[in-house]
Amino acid sequence: MDGSNKQIRLARRPVGTPTLEDFSFTEAPIGTPGEGEVLIRNVYISVDPYLRGRMEDVKSYIPPFQLNDVIISGVIGQVVESKSAHFAKGDIVIGMLGWEEYSVAHEKTLRKLDPALAPVTANLGIIGMTGLTAYFGLLDIGQPKEGETVVVSGAAGAVGSTVGQIAKIKGARVVGIAGSEEKCSYLINELGFDAAINYKTEEVGKVLEKACPDGIDVYFDNVGGEISDAVFPLLNKFARIPVCGAISAYNKTEADIGSRVQTYLIKTSAFMKGFTVGDYSSRFKEGGAQLAAWLNEGKLKYEETIKEGFDSIIEAFLDLFKGKNLGKQLVKISEFE
Amino acid sequence: MDGSNKQIRLARRPVGTPTLEDFSFTEAPIGTPGEGEVLIRNVYISVDPYLRGRMEDVKSYIPPFQLNDVIISGVIGQVVESKSAHFAKGDIVIGMLGWEEYSVAHEKTLRKLDPALAPVTANLGIIGMTGLTAYFGLLDIGQPKEGETVVVSGAAGAVGSTVGQIAKIKGARVVGIAGSEEKCSYLINELGFDAAINYKTEEVGKVLEKACPDGIDVYFDNVGGEISDAVFPLLNKFARIPVCGAISAYNKTEADIGSRVQTYLIKTSAFMKGFTVGDYSSRFKEGGAQLAAWLNEGKLKYEETIKEGFDSIIEAFLDLFKGKNLGKQLVKISEFE
Repeated sequence: MDGSNKQIRLARRPVGTPTLEDFSFTEAPIGTPGEGEVLIRNVYISVDPYLRGRMEDVKSYIPPFQLNDVIISGVIGQVVESKSAHFAKGDIVIGMLGWEEYSVAHEKTLRKLDPALAPVTANLGIIGMTGLTAYFGLLDIGQPKEGETVVVSGAAGAVGSTVGQIAKIKGARVVGIAGSEEKCSYLINELGFDAAINYKTEEVGKVLEKACPDGIDVYFDNVGGEISDAVFPLLNKFARIPVCGAISAYNKTEADIGSRVQTYLIKTSAFMKGFTVGDYSSRFKEGGAQLAAWLNEGKLKYEETIKEGFDSIIEAFLDLFKGKNLGKQLVKISEFE
Repeated sequence: MDGSNKQIRLARRPVGTPTLEDFSFTEAPIGTPGEGEVLIRNVYISVDPYLRGRMEDVKSYIPPFQLNDVIISGVIGQVVESKSAHFAKGDIVIGMLGWEEYSVAHEKTLRKLDPALAPVTANLGIIGMTGLTAYFGLLDIGQPKEGETVVVSGAAGAVGSTVGQIAKIKGARVVGIAGSEEKCSYLINELGFDAAINYKTEEVGKVLEKACPDGIDVYFDNVGGEISDAVFPLLNKFARIPVCGAISAYNKTEADIGSRVQTYLIKTSAFMKGFTVGDYSSRFKEGGAQLAAWLNEGKLKYEETIKEGFDSIIEAFLDLFKGKNLGKQLVKISEFE
């Protein structure tokens, strides 16, 4: 296909909070699919906090981006040219693709979406990676039981809001920690959380103690930092802590210093486990089916914050660290035909 | 029985490192056993770091000592008078008894020891609470596999030295962290550790990286603090961290501030669990039998540091926080007859 393909590349490794200057906007010819490949016009780009980690040159659960690489994340697009027997022109597909207008991808790296089953963007959120992250972290590590108290930080984000709802489905008392009054009232009034704490205006430890009169059995940690420091003294015996994210630390240039957790863990025999959704890849089918069922039964709700236009991808990514998003942050860069 | 009974009571709650003045030496008449009870002349008193926690007035896994209570710990003694069908005069017994010359105890709180099976003091150490602590923490939480690297802090203490030996039995590479050259050479030359690091003279993080060329799969944490801070960056994917003790923090009067662990746990999907040996009380028989078998097969060795005399109990306890003990710290306050 003729024409040019706008792309966003990692120009340099961010130091602290990423800025526009850490990225370069380049143009390249639109690619041509080889045998078994398709050409995709990208429509929805997912921006996620974990991508900050991939911009560092350190060992982690996924290899870092190389300098001048096109940034890769979850993307939904539409097939415009196919050399694959599995995909036809017009098919809507999802995969890990570039921050670019057009991607060429091998058929094995793509999955076809059926818009009749669920809104397609849900596949980047509540029934996709963020939903699965919530599902496995909460149920496999957190294991909430009926009547227990579950606290979730980053509660109005894509993962946190799903965690709280699944905890409610399991019969737990759910307390969310989020960064604005609007988010807190969303959690309580729309998602059915039992309480919500605005960490920007309230003293988390104090308010949390009141909101959790029976202590805390599960703490789903999306943020780390001072918010998590305030949670540890309130843990119950045999508490479980899925450690999903530490967004408070991702942009730190100095060491992440705060409360050491050892004494709290010993006093309560509590259990803390880091994880990434990839640890559960063999169970994605199970998780996706359950999330889709809950969604269709009306037991799960979700919000999306969608920016428009290719040029707003970086801004959407940077907004994550300012806590601007309610639910899943996406960027729409073209239309389905 | 006539005569007087020296006792040690908690005079006030220690602030920071305990001192002699936090305890009072009192005398009381020797007690008289009622129905189902025995009078015991205490012989070996166990002093343990966890007792520091019981001197604080805070919620923990065991209730705190009350002011003016006689301090309670593991004790081995000899029955001098019995009103129990299960115990006879002369029997050697173990129980949670007072820091006192004579105790009266109910038959249900005591266990009879057979000196033919193992040296009696081993029941306060390697086949008793500290051995069981090592056994369950390492095997249930740490789950070392053949060829993996296990790091243990407080490695020359009663728990740490057993952890390292069990890890060797399981085929792991074992690196100990301890506080003197003498302890380090004991770990390598007597117990068969693969490497040992003297945290008082060496830079733990740097030396540990060399001593663990394949990273760290299990970190058995007895100490917390800066030593543990240095371990986290070296964890492998899916590392396990039994959190057994945090002796570095027990005497702190300010908050325990250091490296936050969240980012390390996320990067490696590592797993950290606090525990206390009581969590495994339903499996003590299994653990005790296995430890005794290994001991009799010559696969486990142990050291004891034994002070003599009732008046040295406090000093022996305080020595724990100076790292003076090699292996299990005991105080011998009388003789078996």
